[in-house]
Amino acid sequence: MSNTELEAIRGRNLERLFNPRSIAVIGASTDLAKAGSQAMLSLKGFPGRLMAVNPKVSEILGFPCYPSVGELPEGVDLAVLAIPAEYCIGVAEQAAARGVGGIFIISGGFGETGAEGGRLQARLAEVCQSTGLRLLGPNTSGFINPHAKCVASFVPGVDQLRKGRVAVVAQSGGVNLSISFLIDHLGHGVSLAAGLGNAVDVSAADVLPMLASDPNTHAIALHLEGVPNGRALFDAVREATAVKPVVALVAGKADIGEFAVSHTGNLMGSHKRTVSALAQAGAVVVNSTEELAQAAVLLATCRLPAKRAASVALVTGQAGPGLLIVDGLKSAGVNVPEFDVAVTDQIQQHLPPMTFIKNPVDTGRPGPGFARIVEAVAGAVEIDAVLVYSLSEPSVLDPVVALSPARAQSGKPVVFGTLGLRADLGPALEALSTANIPAVLSPERLVLAGVALAADARGRWNAQHRAVVPHVSAKPVLTGRFDESRAKALLSEYGIRSPERVLCYGREEAIAAFARLTTPVVVKIAASDVPHKTEVGGVHLGIRDRQGLEKALDAIERIPTADPGKVLIEEMAPDGVELVIGGVRDSSWGVVLMVGLGGVLAEALADSSVRLAPVGASEVQDMLGELRGHKLLDGFRTLPVCNRDAIAAAVIGIGRLLMEHPEIAEIEVNPLRVNVESALALDALVVFGERAGAAQ
Amino acid sequence: MSNTELEAIRGRNLERLFNPRSIAVIGASTDLAKAGSQAMLSLKGFPGRLMAVNPKVSEILGFPCYPSVGELPEGVDLAVLAIPAEYCIGVAEQAAARGVGGIFIISGGFGETGAEGGRLQARLAEVCQSTGLRLLGPNTSGFINPHAKCVASFVPGVDQLRKGRVAVVAQSGGVNLSISFLIDHLGHGVSLAAGLGNAVDVSAADVLPMLASDPNTHAIALHLEGVPNGRALFDAVREATAVKPVVALVAGKADIGEFAVSHTGNLMGSHKRTVSALAQAGAVVVNSTEELAQAAVLLATCRLPAKRAASVALVTGQAGPGLLIVDGLKSAGVNVPEFDVAVTDQIQQHLPPMTFIKNPVDTGRPGPGFARIVEAVAGAVEIDAVLVYSLSEPSVLDPVVALSPARAQSGKPVVFGTLGLRADLGPALEALSTANIPAVLSPERLVLAGVALAADARGRWNAQHRAVVPHVSAKPVLTGRFDESRAKALLSEYGIRSPERVLCYGREEAIAAFARLTTPVVVKIAASDVPHKTEVGGVHLGIRDRQGLEKALDAIERIPTADPGKVLIEEMAPDGVELVIGGVRDSSWGVVLMVGLGGVLAEALADSSVRLAPVGASEVQDMLGELRGHKLLDGFRTLPVCNRDAIAAAVIGIGRLLMEHPEIAEIEVNPLRVNVESALALDALVVFGERAGAAQ
Repeated sequence: MSNTELEAIRGRNLERLFNPRSIAVIGASTDLAKAGSQAMLSLKGFPGRLMAVNPKVSEILGFPCYPSVGELPEGVDLAVLAIPAEYCIGVAEQAAARGVGGIFIISGGFGETGAEGGRLQARLAEVCQSTGLRLLGPNTSGFINPHAKCVASFVPGVDQLRKGRVAVVAQSGGVNLSISFLIDHLGHGVSLAAGLGNAVDVSAADVLPMLASDPNTHAIALHLEGVPNGRALFDAVREATAVKPVVALVAGKADIGEFAVSHTGNLMGSHKRTVSALAQAGAVVVNSTEELAQAAVLLATCRLPAKRAASVALVTGQAGPGLLIVDGLKSAGVNVPEFDVAVTDQIQQHLPPMTFIKNPVDTGRPGPGFARIVEAVAGAVEIDAVLVYSLSEPSVLDPVVALSPARAQSGKPVVFGTLGLRADLGPALEALSTANIPAVLSPERLVLAGVALAADARGRWNAQHRAVVPHVSAKPVLTGRFDESRAKALLSEYGIRSPERVLCYGREEAIAAFARLTTPVVVKIAASDVPHKTEVGGVHLGIRDRQGLEKALDAIERIPTADPGKVLIEEMAPDGVELVIGGVRDSSWGVVLMVGLGGVLAEALADSSVRLAPVGASEVQDMLGELRGHKLLDGFRTLPVCNRDAIAAAVIGIGRLLMEHPEIAEIEVNPLRVNVESALALDALVVFGERAGAAQ
Repeated sequence: MSNTELEAIRGRNLERLFNPRSIAVIGASTDLAKAGSQAMLSLKGFPGRLMAVNPKVSEILGFPCYPSVGELPEGVDLAVLAIPAEYCIGVAEQAAARGVGGIFIISGGFGETGAEGGRLQARLAEVCQSTGLRLLGPNTSGFINPHAKCVASFVPGVDQLRKGRVAVVAQSGGVNLSISFLIDHLGHGVSLAAGLGNAVDVSAADVLPMLASDPNTHAIALHLEGVPNGRALFDAVREATAVKPVVALVAGKADIGEFAVSHTGNLMGSHKRTVSALAQAGAVVVNSTEELAQAAVLLATCRLPAKRAASVALVTGQAGPGLLIVDGLKSAGVNVPEFDVAVTDQIQQHLPPMTFIKNPVDTGRPGPGFARIVEAVAGAVEIDAVLVYSLSEPSVLDPVVALSPARAQSGKPVVFGTLGLRADLGPALEALSTANIPAVLSPERLVLAGVALAADARGRWNAQHRAVVPHVSAKPVLTGRFDESRAKALLSEYGIRSPERVLCYGREEAIAAFARLTTPVVVKIAASDVPHKTEVGGVHLGIRDRQGLEKALDAIERIPTADPGKVLIEEMAPDGVELVIGGVRDSSWGVVLMVGLGGVLAEALADSSVRLAPVGASEVQDMLGELRGHKLLDGFRTLPVCNRDAIAAAVIGIGRLLMEHPEIAEIEVNPLRVNVESALALDALVVFGERAGAAQ
């Protein structure tokens, strides 16, 4: 079988696993306390063919029972394995031979339990890789596909999960169900809810393309712990977000390493890299299961077109909650622009004087003109989405009547936020749902709606404007040590400038070079056997005249080295803001680029931003905007305004360098001295070899 | 009437306003579209005496109607004013004369509408101040006291709010109701729900002492926008938290100034100062109405004793949600300590090998030993509160059975987090509520529970260990300009050291001083008419010998000044970490102390922490811990370890200085150079006069 054929089979088998027309429970039992019996019970509503494998009986719960996997009918789509871990390899092999599409293992005892389990797990992966059989888990509570009435999960209540538009894909079975239940609490349902567990075979990167083309799925809620193959996930998320919104939650912000390893056997990796890569791929990254459920439900109903910085308007019936909502939106960096005069004139007609109408519009207690106001706001060209908040007051405001015209007229998302007694909200929420107007139940959830819409629009914009992968020409493999001078020469091939400099051998060359360069200069020892140049008196700054030069050369001559007389004379860089830029080759994510502020405080705060290579200029601008200290780039206090284009060119250059030189593991330019004219590399470090890179 | 008598009357009248036995609606109407009629309708279930004032009718909805306020029976507790703004002053005067306890004005048209409304509002305040009449609002939707069946608010459904243990006190009427409805969604009720509106008379600082002694109130949920009298609020919160938990939400993180002013007529003030002061006073500060409702409901059920850093344990039935919970707790800085071996031994008996039991305890699917495990964890001396998470599985886990023994045995809070289908959760939640075991519905809400319990315990600890107000001795009032030398001399009176220095007049004194001091020294021009010393060449660093001294003095002599020959010779401070400390006299909060890291990045990030004076040493340690760059104090890279006690002494000294010298508006020491030995003020600025101080 060719690789292409195998990939095609693997794709089809993944569909068969999650959308089965026939299911066999291996190890099915008549003993209700056993997992195999639970599995049969959960699946009893399955409309396709359900069968069991158990050598001792011929029928379980009225479904046919076969003595062995080898005797199953050909081409069963899904086999559920309720047998001890050590038997799973053999059964998987038999299942593959019998044309089963995919298997799901209920029992634990694999990678999460240590070395022996890890070996079992690796053998399972081999079976899948060689045969095209797909495996969900192990170490997961399974999946539910309400559209196919397939409940391959054994927690009570999950068979009652409604059909819906959100697909949940979670690393953890428990989180999968937690998210699905939160979606239920929001009055919605799922198109698929899958826990990937140890993800030996089926990973999020596999499931996303399937969901991208699934007509039942309108948004994808993703939960991740460790990400062993980040680059594949990045590509899958990027392709999915072009079609459907992806909302993502990543565990591991704090150090929870030991417990995390015990859970899935995976290392967590760098939380920052994962979050940055997902956002770069267009996902909306959130901070909690509640936000994940809410944002996915919302985005399954409405989505903005691609836009780099979407603008949101708020119409509120109560000023206090309005204040909290605008506060939340602005704190999250969402545009809440003032309306044009033409728009405020329209709004003005429906409100008493002295009302605040610039955005937000504070209507006071909703009056009869409320629908017209929302319509005027939605019609404003500068506005991409309209948020409306009002306490539930059925006698003065029917939200469907108030919001539908704006929605229909403008085609823009109009989201309603409200609160009232739980018992009173039912009818309004149902009417809104029928009218396809999304509703959320708190001021902060309305903020989340605005943030999620804007983030999704930005993700799509980024995807459409993403950096073109540069032509990676075959470059000679570099070897040997990189001292500062050689590193700077390499950087200059990628457009990253350094101050003018001359590497000199002996005093005569030094004096000649000094005459050519613009003073002041720095004179540094360049011997490769002197690592800490400054500490031994090998770096002399601010040399302006011949006398100073001679003094510096004298001092350097006194430093013991096997390579005497080798000095670097370099023009002093003009004052500026110091940044650090660089890139590492990450074992999961590939080339990861970094830009941060220089200095010890920035280092202590890890005030840096990361992206997967390649990046374009607009992405580097985003990176700079993410720096907590980004004000320093704009002429803060006595600092110069920084040339952001020059920084972007340098970061892009580092990306190209690392892509063209796979033998280099890491490059760091520290500092990159930036002013309004230029960005100059003052020092650079080049490290060879494969290397995961330190956590950013 | 003496001030003490008036204060006593004001206190009693506040009780009468919120807990009335008789209510009159002024401007009551038979026209259902009018506010006066709505008010009568809302109050019709009121069990006390309800009456109306309207000259045209003698009865409304069966309640007696009087022609004027002057003809009301004596001593009505609460008058609700449904009349236009301009008539309110006169009616308030009549009401006060007739012995009314408090009034609540439905209509708008006061401070929130501009100058004219502001004048009306000020006159209302005068009436209240001189008579002891209390006024809620104006510009609020009123209040609900379900225990007294008093619904002085006119939004549908509020009359159905249940009796409960949480008192809601919100600046905004709309937020008051939003929070109350969220509490309803959590299955709880309120003891009072009040919107303060423009808070002309009744402010949060007034209501808190009343609630602190209200037996129906077990926790207070506070929402604030601007805080005009911060110091009174600080004191009120501090006194309340000694008795009951206070949870607070503060609007205005982002710049929402213009809309905010239009809302209540108040300026927002500094969000950071408000949040810091509330936390310092012992409040649990949260970020959303949902968190406010959830944390208040939780803390109304259970509370930790005072503890500086409470420790939390987690027992989870599913690893994935457990990972999210531990991640959240650790990210929020809550201790999740490993258990003692004795405890893990106990737990081990109930779980299969290879289970993670160090904290969290990951039980896998809950088994029969679950209750014993929770008990063992709750019994651990190192643990103050136990969090338990498990998906709803009634067949394998009855949460009341599983959690009650631990609660009863240990007396510690045991909080249950769960999720399941909304329709299935009802019975379990009801049983938990009956058993007085708090339950929350998501992993993050369980995190919030842990964070809120720990923050409340820390607030109580801080209150018990708060800085004693120092004896403020009468000091001579300082006047005149403070140059660097005089400022440093003043600081030294408060124990804040500077490098050894001598102020010299003429070359001879300078040479003598140089001989006495330890080199290297810095030589600075000290003339008071030279503000930018460095720019004019008036600062010479690193002077080590007589020749260098003479050169520096020559250079300084060439600077034109009216005060020639005056130089400051100061020993160079040893290397160290540079901090900024200071204090300002804030018009709302009084003396506010600040500590931050030095340097331009710290300034751009506003990486500083603030507290109201006076502070004790442990509070300054907390301030240092809050700095985002606090790592820099612990020997980061080549920096020295900082003497935190010396920093604390300096900050405490600045507080004492500002309290003893009310004529000083602001002091800033920048930089404070700190190493393992000492904290030295290298420069200082003293500003006279009353001044609100810039936002921190």
